[in-house]
Amino acid sequence: MTEELAAPLSAEDQMVQSMADASPTKWHRAHTTWFFETFILLPHARGYRPFDERFTFLFNSYYKRLGGHPVRAQRGLWSRPSLAEVGDYRAHVDRHIAAMLSDGVSPEIERLLELGVNHEQQHQELILTDIKHALWVNPLQPAYTESSTEPRCQAAPMQWLDYPGGEREIGYRGDGFCFDNETPRHSLLLRPFRLASRLITSGEYLEFMNDGGYRRPELWLSEGWDEACGNAWDAPLYWHRDGDRWLQFTLAGERDVEPAEPVCHVSYFEADAYARWAGARLPLEAEWEVAATALPVAGNLLEERRLHPAAARGSGLQQMFGDCWEWTASPYVGYPGYQPDPGALGEYNGKFMCNQMVLRGGSCATPRSHVRSSYRNFFPARARWQFSSLRLAK
Amino acid sequence: MTEELAAPLSAEDQMVQSMADASPTKWHRAHTTWFFETFILLPHARGYRPFDERFTFLFNSYYKRLGGHPVRAQRGLWSRPSLAEVGDYRAHVDRHIAAMLSDGVSPEIERLLELGVNHEQQHQELILTDIKHALWVNPLQPAYTESSTEPRCQAAPMQWLDYPGGEREIGYRGDGFCFDNETPRHSLLLRPFRLASRLITSGEYLEFMNDGGYRRPELWLSEGWDEACGNAWDAPLYWHRDGDRWLQFTLAGERDVEPAEPVCHVSYFEADAYARWAGARLPLEAEWEVAATALPVAGNLLEERRLHPAAARGSGLQQMFGDCWEWTASPYVGYPGYQPDPGALGEYNGKFMCNQMVLRGGSCATPRSHVRSSYRNFFPARARWQFSSLRLAK
Amino acid sequence: MTEELAAPLSAEDQMVQSMADASPTKWHRAHTTWFFETFILLPHARGYRPFDERFTFLFNSYYKRLGGHPVRAQRGLWSRPSLAEVGDYRAHVDRHIAAMLSDGVSPEIERLLELGVNHEQQHQELILTDIKHALWVNPLQPAYTESSTEPRCQAAPMQWLDYPGGEREIGYRGDGFCFDNETPRHSLLLRPFRLASRLITSGEYLEFMNDGGYRRPELWLSEGWDEACGNAWDAPLYWHRDGDRWLQFTLAGERDVEPAEPVCHVSYFEADAYARWAGARLPLEAEWEVAATALPVAGNLLEERRLHPAAARGSGLQQMFGDCWEWTASPYVGYPGYQPDPGALGEYNGKFMCNQMVLRGGSCATPRSHVRSSYRNFFPARARWQFSSLRLAK
Amino acid sequence: MTEELAAPLSAEDQMVQSMADASPTKWHRAHTTWFFETFILLPHARGYRPFDERFTFLFNSYYKRLGGHPVRAQRGLWSRPSLAEVGDYRAHVDRHIAAMLSDGVSPEIERLLELGVNHEQQHQELILTDIKHALWVNPLQPAYTESSTEPRCQAAPMQWLDYPGGEREIGYRGDGFCFDNETPRHSLLLRPFRLASRLITSGEYLEFMNDGGYRRPELWLSEGWDEACGNAWDAPLYWHRDGDRWLQFTLAGERDVEPAEPVCHVSYFEADAYARWAGARLPLEAEWEVAATALPVAGNLLEERRLHPAAARGSGLQQMFGDCWEWTASPYVGYPGYQPDPGALGEYNGKFMCNQMVLRGGSCATPRSHVRSSYRNFFPARARWQFSSLRLAK
Repeated sequence: MTEELAAPLSAEDQMVQSMADASPTKWHRAHTTWFFETFILLPHARGYRPFDERFTFLFNSYYKRLGGHPVRAQRGLWSRPSLAEVGDYRAHVDRHIAAMLSDGVSPEIERLLELGVNHEQQHQELILTDIKHALWVNPLQPAYTESSTEPRCQAAPMQWLDYPGGEREIGYRGDGFCFDNETPRHSLLLRPFRLASRLITSGEYLEFMNDGGYRRPELWLSEGWDEACGNAWDAPLYWHRDGDRWLQFTLAGERDVEPAEPVCHVSYFEADAYARWAGARLPLEAEWEVAATALPVAGNLLEERRLHPAAARGSGLQQMFGDCWEWTASPYVGYPGYQPDPGALGEYNGKFMCNQMVLRGGSCATPRSHVRSSYRNFFPARARWQFSSLRLAK
Repeated sequence: MTEELAAPLSAEDQMVQSMADASPTKWHRAHTTWFFETFILLPHARGYRPFDERFTFLFNSYYKRLGGHPVRAQRGLWSRPSLAEVGDYRAHVDRHIAAMLSDGVSPEIERLLELGVNHEQQHQELILTDIKHALWVNPLQPAYTESSTEPRCQAAPMQWLDYPGGEREIGYRGDGFCFDNETPRHSLLLRPFRLASRLITSGEYLEFMNDGGYRRPELWLSEGWDEACGNAWDAPLYWHRDGDRWLQFTLAGERDVEPAEPVCHVSYFEADAYARWAGARLPLEAEWEVAATALPVAGNLLEERRLHPAAARGSGLQQMFGDCWEWTASPYVGYPGYQPDPGALGEYNGKFMCNQMVLRGGSCATPRSHVRSSYRNFFPARARWQFSSLRLAK
Repeated sequence: MTEELAAPLSAEDQMVQSMADASPTKWHRAHTTWFFETFILLPHARGYRPFDERFTFLFNSYYKRLGGHPVRAQRGLWSRPSLAEVGDYRAHVDRHIAAMLSDGVSPEIERLLELGVNHEQQHQELILTDIKHALWVNPLQPAYTESSTEPRCQAAPMQWLDYPGGEREIGYRGDGFCFDNETPRHSLLLRPFRLASRLITSGEYLEFMNDGGYRRPELWLSEGWDEACGNAWDAPLYWHRDGDRWLQFTLAGERDVEPAEPVCHVSYFEADAYARWAGARLPLEAEWEVAATALPVAGNLLEERRLHPAAARGSGLQQMFGDCWEWTASPYVGYPGYQPDPGALGEYNGKFMCNQMVLRGGSCATPRSHVRSSYRNFFPARARWQFSSLRLAK
Repeated sequence: MTEELAAPLSAEDQMVQSMADASPTKWHRAHTTWFFETFILLPHARGYRPFDERFTFLFNSYYKRLGGHPVRAQRGLWSRPSLAEVGDYRAHVDRHIAAMLSDGVSPEIERLLELGVNHEQQHQELILTDIKHALWVNPLQPAYTESSTEPRCQAAPMQWLDYPGGEREIGYRGDGFCFDNETPRHSLLLRPFRLASRLITSGEYLEFMNDGGYRRPELWLSEGWDEACGNAWDAPLYWHRDGDRWLQFTLAGERDVEPAEPVCHVSYFEADAYARWAGARLPLEAEWEVAATALPVAGNLLEERRLHPAAARGSGLQQMFGDCWEWTASPYVGYPGYQPDPGALGEYNGKFMCNQMVLRGGSCATPRSHVRSSYRNFFPARARWQFSSLRLAK
């Protein structure tokens, strides 16, 4: 999948880093390979020699216990190693992983392989969100993929679905893979709540904008208002006005904002302001998980190759998986009794548990096998370049 | 109390704003008066004429619904109005409030008066923490008050106190005054937990420092590590090394760091790193409140006039009130069902519920009648200029 | 004079530092005193004891050879020493200087005293320009002095005056005091040139503005255009538009822009752009000096107490001294053979000879005895808070 | 030559922009082509159709009169147009220029062609200085070219050469091509002066460093000292210490600092500080030109393909052309009577005449036919990434 996602991009495209938060495609491809080499091949494959000693430092993202890493904001300056060398690096590591697998591996290594695959799936989504930003800052605004024009349609009407309160359990349950931040499963008390049946649409969001949403401080968190003013936000990221029309940049290039589609690329601050304007609130992550737990993981996910959110068409609780990540009202903290994985892998999740908000449900850029009802994504409240949207709660 | 705290300070002292987070004493005195004028006299005192029309704008801190306020970081540039004029402003408003009271007031106004007093108490603490910073940045490092030298002493040994888990209630209960963020009272589930009997001492913190606490990224949250490196933190704020000694700036001037006293002026990031180093964690705010709820509000609070934390001397659960605010592991969010006060007063608490951490318990600069077990203070994780410390939990 | 200029200002007023380029009045008063103490009393007055050892460091502006100085941008945070202490410092040093003088002094000390007085005169002008900025940033915009309303008048018409080219001499000639940067007197070749008879008026500058002066990049130096755009300049400093009117903040408070008065508070970039728009250029400092050398030092200088430029009323070459400093087209460099004064005093002028432009002629805030035809003032091209204007040349 | 210089670089290498001052090789190649298209083909080639309408905006560097240009600091983000498209663009424009030439061109167009070639030569030098920086910031520090190891040698001893004073002429004289900033030729007065026979060597510069050159503020201009401290300069750009050795990054990769070679990659501030330390000064540009005017343009220039300065080996006045540009003590201003070229081409030189210093003589990256004794290069005093060095004067 990683290689398929990178395939439409030239060596030049794969080198762009359009802001410090994003990374070049080439870096994503090398770093995910480094992960397998560092955590599996080097400690566990007898006689394994690193492809290039210098990559050990070069493609470490942020694991301090492994002894240092380059400055994140300069990843876009690395014309060397070339894309071809990174391709060789991937082939080399793939070959050794395959050899290991054919020999049979221990449960511990199986667990590490699963982690490596899940890690790479996260970077598959980032490849798409980061290249979307990179192509957008280019004055030519080229498309990543062919346009998939679809007939305009209506979104299914929004309904309120009721959920009882009481003691509930959240957190991962099962024998499969999960990240440490989904554990331990634990009980908590919920009050009765209501969830909207689908995501907020661009059309609904336009009403908020037309009602002065970006000019009324009483709707905003204090820090959100400062962020909005300081960056002159007046619409979601990738939107711009052309006379009477609103246009949006998509992975298929620029096109009209479709009122029926979910609004996308909004920050937590915007999601929160919209909810306040609408007389509602964002759901807690526990509310979301309780509602999602019985649903199959299905929807407009990466395998659909749509790469853009789609209008809700069904009835009942929709769009819980896929389309867009949903900002929740829950700050990202460890669950009661949370223990990070041991060693350097413990830096994967735990050290980011501050000043981030939880998002749930996956997006049109998330691999289907990657997400589940207990899955916790997280980003700072100001982040907008992910496929992020909102669902109302009461 | 406000006037008493300002009394040792000259007109010049009362004008200093040493960083954007802090405000001049003169501003605190004017703004707290503005609060009474704006929310009580102007809407409720028949025929009241504002002391100076321009102050309506000038001394608004952040209430957007009242139509704008000056840039916060420039408060230290206002030589006019003079300190004497601000004194006149206070006398004018006091006079009218007194007249109102002697006529008898409605419960609604009583509630507003209580809010005004509690608001002013918060600024009393800020007067002390802000002037401490202001005097410290002065190359002469003058003292705010006479030195109160005390005999060195031992801190009471730290013990672990056990608390059962289960369903518990937190939030304000009673008929008195509380802030909207302490409500609604609600139930939640706690796991059994242990609390340390007292705050961490400077001596214990020195062990962390001597063990490389500020040089070991594995002990830190990612954002905390960046903050510590970016600002070259190697000790709590106000500490500096002089050869073999560690000195600390206090409101009584510079003196030796006392190992028995609680460590103070640490950020959430430092508190969290210390706890990780110590094999423990910070308490949840609910854990803290459950443990504190039976205790009287007593300790080294503002009325002691010590203005500096003191060594723990007793036994059992100590230092819950006073000495230093205690960082908790809980991000500052609204309780389930939280509703901000209506109107502009709703901006008091709710709009800051993002990217801040809850602190509990009050400090040596908090008025005794201001704090209680349900009281929620909050600051960004990087803040260090408050009297902030930590207590371990497990 | 220093004390007279400070007299209308409270202790609070004298503490304001409204930007890093400016300094508080209190600081100016202490630093000029420090200059006499450091360069005269300490090395030359037998048995002299410093008023306060700590002031040696505290009131050093930038003399690196004297062992360090505080951060410039924090001068406004020093509530201590108090204004009263600074007054005592001045009295103490005055007393010792007076005693020295009554004993008779050597020519070397006489030269240092003269330097000290000239140094203080520079700070007298800065007291006025800095407090003007300080009062302007105050939302109340108080006046420094009573308004001196004058009848509106016409400016004398601008004429072109011709000067022959050839070999000319510039630089100080005489036995009196001058700064090292006015020496050595030397010859240079000039081409025939023309000078405008007076400064550009606010009315003329308004024509430039109305002709799109601030929106036409072809009129600007590249760096000036970036500065203008980055700071949203659309008029001189202290001007603002109120409907159809242009108002300006003056030391007597806000009043209408008077078309007949010289335009003031423009940067070099604006002066240069105006000249280009007008089909002319700014004079070289040598051209200015050659034209000024025969004139008496007379005009709207500090002793007039007007503290604001006045309309030109006479004929022939006017406004060469006083009213406003005139930006020249000459970068500030040492004259051929220039040698800085020896020792720490050599830091007075020489080390600033980079990235500054020369201004000539003095302003309404310059003491009459301070300026002369060879006098070289200098500021960065972006500076606007001095009384700076322009005269055209061809 | 442009294509030859770009040849060793991959599409990825040609995309790197390592700082805002520098540009990608691909951009240089496209912009120089844009120059021919914009100033020659579009206005003068009948029926010429632009290769791509969007390039008109995209590859404009800073010509405001042509209606806007992209943000300079983002040139490194343009993966599109691809390197291949830029190659096609160049071929297209070359073809049309060749066709134009074969038809015969007017003197006006000949002049524009000459300007276009000279413009491209400037970018040839920038291709080398910019890629040097780009490869240096890469953690792998790859080489641009094969290492040309040479035997260590001694530099010729430095001698002082005397020049008489008096009236002299500078500025371009002749019928060939020159830039507008070399005109008009004019007379000026010089005092007798001495020039060092060669550039300062790395060995001599190491003496300055070992004598505390970077720690002694009295040697520095005020702004230079702030720049040096703020950026932690302790050696020329591209140098770093490895134990007892000093290494330097070159276009052939990292190698030892050679004491006999000219010191290179120093700012004006460092050159000025060195000269002060050595009891000398930097030459005026007029002094340099008077001395250089009789010499042939010969030396270690681009055509040598050394791409690194070489030790002086001869006698008499050496290294005037090639090796390194020489900082002069002259700010970059227009000569008396200077007139920029008409139209958008007038933005080429004139609008940069502020806050820059003149450099003379060309470097090992300058095409031989590009430089001459009247040639004026200019950079801000803080710039270090050009091949810049110094020669002493007295």
